[in-house]
Parts: sequence; C-alpha cells; structure tokens
Amino acid sequence: MDQLTEKEIEHFLSINKGWKLVDKKWIEKSYRFKEYLDGIAFVQKIARISEEANHHPFISIDYKLIKVRLTSWRAKGLTALDTSLAQQFDQTYEE
Amino acid sequence: MDQLTEKEIEHFLSINKGWKLVDKKWIEKSYRFKEYLDGIAFVQKIARISEEANHHPFISIDYKLIKVRLTSWRAKGLTALDTSLAQQFDQTYEE
Repeated sequence: MDQLTEKEIEHFLSINKGWKLVDKKWIEKSYRFKEYLDGIAFVQKIARISEEANHHPFISIDYKLIKVRLTSWRAKGLTALDTSLAQQFDQTYEE
Repeated sequence: MDQLTEKEIEHFLSINKGWKLVDKKWIEKSYRFKEYLDGIAFVQKIARISEEANHHPFISIDYKLIKVRLTSWRAKGLTALDTSLAQQFDQTYEE
C-alpha cells in the first residue's frame, strides 16, 4: 500500500478532530472516558477491529485516558489503512 | 499507606520474576502473548482487578507485548498495594 501524500494527510487531519501527526509517520489521538472500565471496553472494541484488519495500533491506558497511535511499518509511514482505522476508532468512540 | 523500604522492594524483585524498578518509584513488567487478542483479554482481566482495588496501573499495548507499570501517587512511591497487584497480575498471566 502506498504512503499517503502530505496533502492527503493534511486533508485527513482537517476533517477528523483530535488527530495529530507525530514524527511525520504516526497519527495519534487521545480519548477520554468518564469511567475506567468504559475506556477498557473501548480498547477491546478497537483491538477487535484492528485484529480483523491485521493492522495494530500502539495503545496506552493512563487511567481514563486512552491514547492510540497508528502507522504502517511496511510503507514506513502513513497509508489509507491508518486513516481508515482511525475513522473506525472515532466511530466506535461516538457509539 | 506507607512507602515500602528499599529492602522490601529488593525482596519483592528477588522473588517475582520479570519485574524491574524504574525511576525508584515504579515497578514495571512486560508480558508477551502468542495471540494479539489473548493480550487484550489479559488487559481486560487486570483492569477489572485494578478497578476493584481502586488502584490503576499504566498499561501499554504494543501488538503482542503488554507493558504494565505501577506506583502509588499518594505515597509518592511504591506501597504494598503495588506489589499486591503485581502478584495478582502475574497470577492472572499464569492462568
């Protein structure tokens, strides 16, 4: 899968709130939850989505704050797989 | 709850494999899993234990590697609550 162009990344960031670019090759977002176990349930849901896509984010759990980072190792940068998962994570959070 | 003494921490580390001391105030361990979703299930189990104890570790998920860090903020260091949870996490992993 091809790397996204700078323009494509900018476009993604402009229409998907909360995501930021880190070290040019990661997109990162933090999700906050009212209850600790709600955050854990969210992790479980996005992990299932990631396993199905065979594309796994780096996830950290700092009490009620869940941070997610995506990149495509093979492409050495960001691909449509990352932005697609990012949007699925956002959708899961909104539910 | 009182901070553990250096001797108590050394004793804990000597009898509980894989745990290491970080910055004098954290104990940290990485758990490896054969399947991604097994690691996620482990996170869910230790999160439930942590919520019951009202004492929450920092957790990171890097594909099949789960890293856990414990400290007691109020005591500004390690307490028996940290070592107790650490041992419960180890037990959960062995199951």
